[in-house]
Amino acid sequence: MKKKLGARTALYPLPATLVGANVEGKPNFMTVAHVGVMDLGTVSLGMNKIHYTNQGIKENGTFSINIPTERLVKEVDYCGMVSGRKADKARLFETFYGQLETAPMIAECPLNLECRLVQTVDMPNHDIFIGEVVEVYCDEECMDGDAIEFLEVKPLLYAMGDPSHFTASSSYYSLGSRLAPAWEVGKELLK
Amino acid sequence: MKKKLGARTALYPLPATLVGANVEGKPNFMTVAHVGVMDLGTVSLGMNKIHYTNQGIKENGTFSINIPTERLVKEVDYCGMVSGRKADKARLFETFYGQLETAPMIAECPLNLECRLVQTVDMPNHDIFIGEVVEVYCDEECMDGDAIEFLEVKPLLYAMGDPSHFTASSSYYSLGSRLAPAWEVGKELLK
Repeated sequence: MKKKLGARTALYPLPATLVGANVEGKPNFMTVAHVGVMDLGTVSLGMNKIHYTNQGIKENGTFSINIPTERLVKEVDYCGMVSGRKADKARLFETFYGQLETAPMIAECPLNLECRLVQTVDMPNHDIFIGEVVEVYCDEECMDGDAIEFLEVKPLLYAMGDPSHFTASSSYYSLGSRLAPAWEVGKELLK
Repeated sequence: MKKKLGARTALYPLPATLVGANVEGKPNFMTVAHVGVMDLGTVSLGMNKIHYTNQGIKENGTFSINIPTERLVKEVDYCGMVSGRKADKARLFETFYGQLETAPMIAECPLNLECRLVQTVDMPNHDIFIGEVVEVYCDEECMDGDAIEFLEVKPLLYAMGDPSHFTASSSYYSLGSRLAPAWEVGKELLK
């Protein structure tokens, strides 16, 4: 039996990421799970305009998306609760920069995407930052040949519960097991 | 040690969804994992312009996002391999419609988002469809009060491997266990 829940996103779980930007010349990181992929080289971030980090992305036209591993769950949650206006969140991490020079990345995160801002979609309360990925960095231990081994990355997956009281009903989940190869398991139905 | 992987998305895993649209008056479903959330009521799809489904989304200004459960993995994979131009994929499912009347949804998927197209971002090879969620439908067995219980939904999570041979290195994963409550576990670092 289907229940109607009204208008809400419900498109979860999504990876909980740490978005990096230099704001007023200093590195800052903010937790963002409202991310997306647009094409093979382009990603999106949906970020409420109240955030300090938005200012840095606009200042520099660059940002990073850092994919944390499970053991950083406290840091990830903290970076979603506290504004960079009030706390130096970069002190929690070892920071590094890549070719864009202004997109701070987190060494402790096994996977890092360095991005150039290419477009901003202006929504009533949110900036949608669309970024071209210029480089990806991955810990060698999380690679299997040229492929990223997500079971080694151990990303944090976020699902928001009831939007009306999301702080009381949202959780982080682990990635489970590999179920099936894609572009393969469905071939049975081609017959 | 970080390894540079060049420019690719790498922002995975993302939920493998079945996107529904009426094309030339008939329901069609296509597998899309390049999804995103923009704000609490808005979602995005990144879909190569070659797809048949794009035409239906543009015709009607509506679409659905259906979140399949693990046991549909073969159907999900198949719907990503075969075009609606060549096969009637809707025959695999029981279809239902909601208030928009033209966005077909899949009864066997525990979670369904009915969406109105509000904007299209035109990229070189992709249409980025931005949709307002007008209604969410969820199987009662997958609810915990007003919250969606994603451990009961058992979504399929997709990660693309090496983009240069992605059909040989991409997988579907299960959702693992609940690790920690969000907006809570990080409070320890506030002190």
